[in-house]
Amino acid sequence: MSTGAQAVVDAGGEPLTRIMDRVERRMAELAVGHGPMLARHAGATISAGGKRLRPMLVCLAAGAPPPETAGLVRAAVAVELVHGATLVHDDVLDGSPLRRGRPTVVATGGRAAATATGDLLFSRAFAELAAEGAGSPGAVRVLARASRQLALGELAQREDAFRADVTVARYLDRCRLKTAVLFRAACELGALEAGGDADALGAFGERIGLAFQILDDVLDVSGPPERTGKPRGADLLDGTVTLPLILARARDPELVALDLRSVRTAADAAAVCDRIAATGALDVARSRARDLVADAKLGLPELPDRQREALELAADVMVERYA
Amino acid sequence: MSTGAQAVVDAGGEPLTRIMDRVERRMAELAVGHGPMLARHAGATISAGGKRLRPMLVCLAAGAPPPETAGLVRAAVAVELVHGATLVHDDVLDGSPLRRGRPTVVATGGRAAATATGDLLFSRAFAELAAEGAGSPGAVRVLARASRQLALGELAQREDAFRADVTVARYLDRCRLKTAVLFRAACELGALEAGGDADALGAFGERIGLAFQILDDVLDVSGPPERTGKPRGADLLDGTVTLPLILARARDPELVALDLRSVRTAADAAAVCDRIAATGALDVARSRARDLVADAKLGLPELPDRQREALELAADVMVERYA
Repeated sequence: MSTGAQAVVDAGGEPLTRIMDRVERRMAELAVGHGPMLARHAGATISAGGKRLRPMLVCLAAGAPPPETAGLVRAAVAVELVHGATLVHDDVLDGSPLRRGRPTVVATGGRAAATATGDLLFSRAFAELAAEGAGSPGAVRVLARASRQLALGELAQREDAFRADVTVARYLDRCRLKTAVLFRAACELGALEAGGDADALGAFGERIGLAFQILDDVLDVSGPPERTGKPRGADLLDGTVTLPLILARARDPELVALDLRSVRTAADAAAVCDRIAATGALDVARSRARDLVADAKLGLPELPDRQREALELAADVMVERYA
Repeated sequence: MSTGAQAVVDAGGEPLTRIMDRVERRMAELAVGHGPMLARHAGATISAGGKRLRPMLVCLAAGAPPPETAGLVRAAVAVELVHGATLVHDDVLDGSPLRRGRPTVVATGGRAAATATGDLLFSRAFAELAAEGAGSPGAVRVLARASRQLALGELAQREDAFRADVTVARYLDRCRLKTAVLFRAACELGALEAGGDADALGAFGERIGLAFQILDDVLDVSGPPERTGKPRGADLLDGTVTLPLILARARDPELVALDLRSVRTAADAAAVCDRIAATGALDVARSRARDLVADAKLGLPELPDRQREALELAADVMVERYA
């Protein structure tokens, strides 16, 4: 765990560590609890790996220390399962061989098994929230809305693929749909579980989720691959137009003329990344993400000092990863 | 509408007609309510077509006449949305160009859009159940369990593809997972909404769902294509081993020797279908389905006469389609 993430856990205290351990155990149980087929296909995806940022947000939005309730564990697990489901389906569509350094479900089981596995993880998420003694119709509503928006975000991304005319506003809206809504849902679910201010904490989650996605898109251009675990310019090769390219286009006429469909090899992609970086667009994008994190902190509602500090630290961790 | 289905609606009376109209209107609303992307991709799938058997079961399990509650409409819509989601994903995996005589989502939008559309329909189903004034955590649990089992059924079917050694028991288990669980859920949701006996009505739904799947598999072999809307032997071409083939193998040694991977053309498939039919396996399979329908009726709990008659008619409609 990075120093920053450790600081977040410290701020949450022993109870946060215990809750996160319970989340991890529950994920491991689910990985083996649906028979050998799921264990083979999805065990690695759901039980191991991942930074567990979303479950941590669920917990911190509930309190620091968070209440050690079964409902909170289930809410945290549900959010992470939805996240896992979207990763499994994304990997099917991208035909990705590796995720978190392990073979993807589509690589080991094929498209059919991976599609079904993603569906199963979605269903399992709602089952967690609706389990006896957990959640509420309100919690199910929050997760269902976020899942729906994630799917719309995926549709928007495919719709925009290879399109040169994607605006900053359209890009931000897509980031909101494909990423930030689940950070928002994480915070809302934590707040609901503890009787907190779900709207305000949800807005906090959405802002840091947007910052997270922008910085992820910056990393795709900046690399280095040893750190990101993927070659530079993977988005370019998929035709995904992100903020660095949009900003760079306004600064470099040659990038305006670039047809994304002509970017076909890793070397092509790396060359475009260098060109984007040369415009200074990466610093502008990073700064935009930092502003969002600052706004997120400023917009936090009245909270106990310890919870506010923990959430502020969590927001910083989003940025720190990319410092 | 067939004479049989009309009889079911008549038995449910005006209130059933009104509820089914509301289900239809809600489906149409949802088809246009997620922006142009969904309307384009999923509008046809969710708003038009389909026999609406599952929503009808939700209503009849609640009563005849059914209570005209918003919760009942939402439960019926939720079940049909989950059904639609699985169809959209199945079409992606099978690369099917047509469904209900219209182009599939994957045919018009591509794999990515279709995968996301299926995810969206799943999420929308849970949102329906968790809407204000609708459903309960119990209802969400029922639908989440069914969705999970549908995904496991899909995994099982792909796992068993082209395997000659699929047993009748394994086949029935797969039918239960991929089809009957959603018929069960439909009946359970109706019963929950009306305070009825969810276990007994669920068992009824599961049995008629099994019968439905068996008869669907018989139709794949018997055709005629003008009636089924697909060429005979489509399952054989997918490598899906169904009851007619399993039963025929026990009667015809040449079918035992058949390698399913050698069945490649429509003509190959039609020839194998003829061979299966010649063994008398189709009659045995039909008879098995009729037995399940009879068991379903016998197992119905104590109910008002009119509701019992309506459910019995609904069970007969499952068989009548294939008479």
